[in-house]
Amino acid sequence: MAERTHSTLMSRPIHLNLFIHGRGHHEAGWRHPGATRKALTDISYFADLARRAEAGRFDSIFFADALELGAGARHVASGALEPITALAALARETTHIGLIATASTTYTEPYNLARQFASLDHISGGRVGWNIVTSWVGGAGPNFGYERTPEHSERYARAEEFVQVVKALWDSWADDAIIDNAATGRFLDPERVRRIDWQGDFYRVAGPLNLPRSPQGWPVLVQAGSSPTGKAFAARHAEAVFTAHLTKASAIDFYAELKQAAVVAGRRENDIVILPGLSAAIGSTDAQGQALLEELNDLTDIDVGLSRLSNRFGGHDFSALALDQPLSRDDFPDPSTVQAAQSRAAVITDLVARERPTLRTLLRQLAGARGHFTLAGSPERIADEIEDWVESRAADGFNVMPPVLPAQFDIFVDHVVPILQKRGRLRREYEADTLRGHYGLARPLNPHFAA
Amino acid sequence: MAERTHSTLMSRPIHLNLFIHGRGHHEAGWRHPGATRKALTDISYFADLARRAEAGRFDSIFFADALELGAGARHVASGALEPITALAALARETTHIGLIATASTTYTEPYNLARQFASLDHISGGRVGWNIVTSWVGGAGPNFGYERTPEHSERYARAEEFVQVVKALWDSWADDAIIDNAATGRFLDPERVRRIDWQGDFYRVAGPLNLPRSPQGWPVLVQAGSSPTGKAFAARHAEAVFTAHLTKASAIDFYAELKQAAVVAGRRENDIVILPGLSAAIGSTDAQGQALLEELNDLTDIDVGLSRLSNRFGGHDFSALALDQPLSRDDFPDPSTVQAAQSRAAVITDLVARERPTLRTLLRQLAGARGHFTLAGSPERIADEIEDWVESRAADGFNVMPPVLPAQFDIFVDHVVPILQKRGRLRREYEADTLRGHYGLARPLNPHFAA
Ligand SMILES: Cc1cc2nc3c(=O)[nH]c(=O)nc-3n(C[C@H](O)[C@H](O)[C@H](O)COP(=O)(O)O)c2cc1C
Ligand SMILES: Cc1cc2nc3c(=O)[nH]c(=O)nc-3n(C[C@H](O)[C@H](O)[C@H](O)COP(=O)(O)O)c2cc1C
Repeated sequence: MAERTHSTLMSRPIHLNLFIHGRGHHEAGWRHPGATRKALTDISYFADLARRAEAGRFDSIFFADALELGAGARHVASGALEPITALAALARETTHIGLIATASTTYTEPYNLARQFASLDHISGGRVGWNIVTSWVGGAGPNFGYERTPEHSERYARAEEFVQVVKALWDSWADDAIIDNAATGRFLDPERVRRIDWQGDFYRVAGPLNLPRSPQGWPVLVQAGSSPTGKAFAARHAEAVFTAHLTKASAIDFYAELKQAAVVAGRRENDIVILPGLSAAIGSTDAQGQALLEELNDLTDIDVGLSRLSNRFGGHDFSALALDQPLSRDDFPDPSTVQAAQSRAAVITDLVARERPTLRTLLRQLAGARGHFTLAGSPERIADEIEDWVESRAADGFNVMPPVLPAQFDIFVDHVVPILQKRGRLRREYEADTLRGHYGLARPLNPHFAA
Repeated sequence: MAERTHSTLMSRPIHLNLFIHGRGHHEAGWRHPGATRKALTDISYFADLARRAEAGRFDSIFFADALELGAGARHVASGALEPITALAALARETTHIGLIATASTTYTEPYNLARQFASLDHISGGRVGWNIVTSWVGGAGPNFGYERTPEHSERYARAEEFVQVVKALWDSWADDAIIDNAATGRFLDPERVRRIDWQGDFYRVAGPLNLPRSPQGWPVLVQAGSSPTGKAFAARHAEAVFTAHLTKASAIDFYAELKQAAVVAGRRENDIVILPGLSAAIGSTDAQGQALLEELNDLTDIDVGLSRLSNRFGGHDFSALALDQPLSRDDFPDPSTVQAAQSRAAVITDLVARERPTLRTLLRQLAGARGHFTLAGSPERIADEIEDWVESRAADGFNVMPPVLPAQFDIFVDHVVPILQKRGRLRREYEADTLRGHYGLARPLNPHFAA
């Protein structure tokens, strides 16, 4: 089930994840005629996207999550379904594709989270992944009894313990704990189920979990933190990593560093699949792709951009800056003091130091995909770039972030996917049934029970 | 959508809910040849039941929940899917039937719970109900950082505030908050979404929720506590009530008392639908129904029965009592001192005082459906009893608890349902699309926003 099936076919296979976000990743995507008119609470919209991604032989789809409404809601399509419930519904609409939901280690109980993800893994027949986040958004804390969102280091300390508890709960049943013998009346072997009796700094959890170990053993563990703490966490735990880079050079550095860190942490390079974000504006020609991106940028709202930038820097106020003068690094707080998402803040200040854009230009650039790699051009050009990043060891594949949904994703599936398939880079048929299988990841052994 | 559509057709319509529990409600049901062989983590088993209930024109299906594995697991089919994820999946397998999931007010965050249920209500198109429980089982607390499960009164105090917070979150968006004007770029009307800024004894929650008000406004609020505190809670909040009675007389008292209490609390009698549990062993003849029940009782395990009885009385040890001597009330702790489920404990001690059964007889009686009304007989007989209870104002319908699943439920749908339909007591077709519609409940107005 979980062997690396592609390696027989291709040198470096490309893994693709569809990041589903509103009506598209471009801030103004929802205003474009190619965007759906369906409500973001309409499951049929998401079901269509999931089936489309499955037709395009993607490894997985993914929902991000924020535990607040967010200031942008006024001018950006928002207020979507909750990811765990959405994934459970989509599990019944699809048969092969992986399904990744974001859930927070800061604002949930490990017992509840371990259980819901194990349940999702059962419902989907082993196709689920958990994007582990500490919830950097400032508005989340006050929805959960905190005066303000806890600090970066505390969030990660809690995340570390949280993940250990959740793994222990998933391993609290041997794979063969259920006897189910109607004749003798023995249902469960009590020797094959164990309490975990966790006593840590943040959590005390007796266990065992109240449902059997799931098809994948553990759902695939995904993570997307890129600060030094975030990378160290990923090196220990992540099996797939989402990351944001504006240039290939920065992606190559990140890739090398993280694979190396995983090896130092006692794992193998292939135990982590690295997927940078890619927001491609695709047209029949490069010029048409470029025109689409311009059209979208023209629809953006300066206030939305300013409020998003401010969020990225933990609430810092940029509104006094002139719109049309070159920025310098000094116009920004030091990223390492930012309590929200440190790595994204650093990506932005690095860009400013390098290119000295005006505020207006910067906001347009970030509007595309909030600091991820954006590209505009023909299907060939997009396919070339994808292959090049993978060959250059900047990526094991991509987190595909269409600027407009579903139109730009349809074009990706109809025009980019066939090119990658023709080049032998992307599967034509699924060769595995589980997300671990698609990503080439091993099923975790259960250390507490001999097989 | 939410009008009382039946009243034009029938004097007192009967509401039916299918309570899905393991492979049947009888403790030994899973050992019977009529029980499914599918795993309790196999969503297709539950999907078949849900579709079957929909074919039988039931109002709803329901999953109970306990936040521990439970000592019985050794000898009783257990370890099923988590209810919220299961319901989301089932929403896509059905089109009309209501879907009720249990979730605890003691071990979750109101923001997460409000959000997942609102999301379920959107996914299902307005068919969701929340069975509000405080989680009486002793093993839950230690899975959530508590030394032991909090006491009865504290659990209910927390539940009261929890429900108020959740309602406020559901009402934090006006029904028409979304503008969604691509031309002007206005997505949301900030005047039609409000923070709740809740500051209570147990919770501080800023809000607003991060998704729009759901089709039903609020999911239907279901509750099943029957202690004095539990009944007062139900009178204030519950729109449907599950309850356990061993006799029609006790059900009549409960019914009158609760409807009266609802009126005192400023509501109308019809604002609460009362559904006692019914576990019917159905055969072609009364004798065959009786034989099935005997057969099941013969499969029960004394130790399982003793450990369940002990759980009901907060861990009290009954193992020293003789199996074949008449019991007396003094053999049991006073129910009002029981920190677990007070009302069920009282049902049991009342029965003991009245009938003086032996311990063996009592355990057999409780094995049927843990203190709910059990009945054995032909389909006619079951239909007669159902009608009689509803006519006698002992019930507005039933929480149907088949002793063996799916076989005994199939018989119910194929043989009892048509009788009730012929008598004009049960819908032949759905006349509403929402659970509120089926139960004849109004959609709650949103007090914070003028329509
Ligand atoms: C593609 C991608 C998706 C992300 N999705 C979420 C998300 O859904 N919720 C969230 O709170 N953070 C999300 N993040 C942020 C990271 O999980 C992380 O919290 C953030 O980068 C801060 O950690 P850091 O300081 O280690 O970078 C995402 C990041 C990336 C690159
Ligand atoms: C039909 C029915 C179903 C119930 N389901 C659950 C459940 O799923 N989880 C739970 O913790 N309690 C459940 N209960 C118990 C009640 O919610 C309540 O907690 C219990 O009766 C204790 O409250 P009381 O002391 O007010 O009766 C159920 C009760 C009944 C009658």
